Amino acid sequence: MKAGGIELGEGGKSSTSRSGVNKGVSVLDFIFRILAFIGTLGSAIAMVTTNETLPFFTRFFQFRAEYDDLPTFTFFVVANAIVSGYLLLSLPFSIFHIVRSSAQRTRMILIFFDMVMLALLTAGASAAAAIVYLAHKGNARVNWLAICQQFNSFCQRTSGSLIGSFAGIILLALLIMLLGVALARRP
Amino acid sequence: MKAGGIELGEGGKSSTSRSGVNKGVSVLDFIFRILAFIGTLGSAIAMVTTNETLPFFTRFFQFRAEYDDLPTFTFFVVANAIVSGYLLLSLPFSIFHIVRSSAQRTRMILIFFDMVMLALLTAGASAAAAIVYLAHKGNARVNWLAICQQFNSFCQRTSGSLIGSFAGIILLALLIMLLGVALARRP
Repeated sequence: MKAGGIELGEGGKSSTSRSGVNKGVSVLDFIFRILAFIGTLGSAIAMVTTNETLPFFTRFFQFRAEYDDLPTFTFFVVANAIVSGYLLLSLPFSIFHIVRSSAQRTRMILIFFDMVMLALLTAGASAAAAIVYLAHKGNARVNWLAICQQFNSFCQRTSGSLIGSFAGIILLALLIMLLGVALARRP
Repeated sequence: MKAGGIELGEGGKSSTSRSGVNKGVSVLDFIFRILAFIGTLGSAIAMVTTNETLPFFTRFFQFRAEYDDLPTFTFFVVANAIVSGYLLLSLPFSIFHIVRSSAQRTRMILIFFDMVMLALLTAGASAAAAIVYLAHKGNARVNWLAICQQFNSFCQRTSGSLIGSFAGIILLALLIMLLGVALARRP
């Protein structure tokens, strides 16, 4: 009963201002979701369209690099595609939160899936970053040569496509925090 | 005022049983934290102590593989060490939650840091997994040879050390969910 009394006091004090803050938070949530969607979709497209054919070739084969020569890049594309698809599907929920700023259950569902997507995107992006690093620097100890001297544009393209993905990671982390703020401030 | 009234009804109904559930959740939180600490610390130690010297050598060098030949493995060790250190430091908070099952602010702080650590551990583990995959399979297109034929024990050890790290990821995700349940059920 005591806890109930405290809630009653808080609810009466500033219910309208809290709902206003939640609306602002929800609008920010919507904007971040669109930005993260653009970032991850851009990353996926940039990676998928990456290929480079070198201008010289031997009798037996042409020197050609495509993103799916390295399985990790395929995983990167799949992870980015899944996350961008999820972000698109979550936009209606975000709009619903702007309209009904006191909704809690949908926010909890969203925070859960956001977290799953954050983990997936982090996994994809960091695995791809490890391979991109190797492509740039190579590794003398295990005799893996840096391929970026030959496939220069391929390397630049794959490195660049990481940016959208890492921006997506930061935005998803911010989204989770925004949802947490909105949940903590329940009117 | 309406929201306050609903809270009052709920608070009076089952305040004690909710506190009991929260205590159970907090005990589970404590156990998972210890398990995740053991997993990540074990991963870090297993990786750091990995090295293999092949029984044959040329006049110029000995064939020797150590974990820090690959920078990604160094990142993996650092990520696991940071996460296991954090998990150890978070144990007192977990005990505090068992004693005071209605604490909210500390739970929110913990859920935030748990999420940061989940992202860090996922990044480390998946980057290391990408390299381990390459060590096992190699890549014919970019002429990176599989080194596991030569450095067999090195490869087994590094692959094995991923297990503790991935178990840590799952446990951290469960911890975040448990904290979320405890926060949602605030008495």
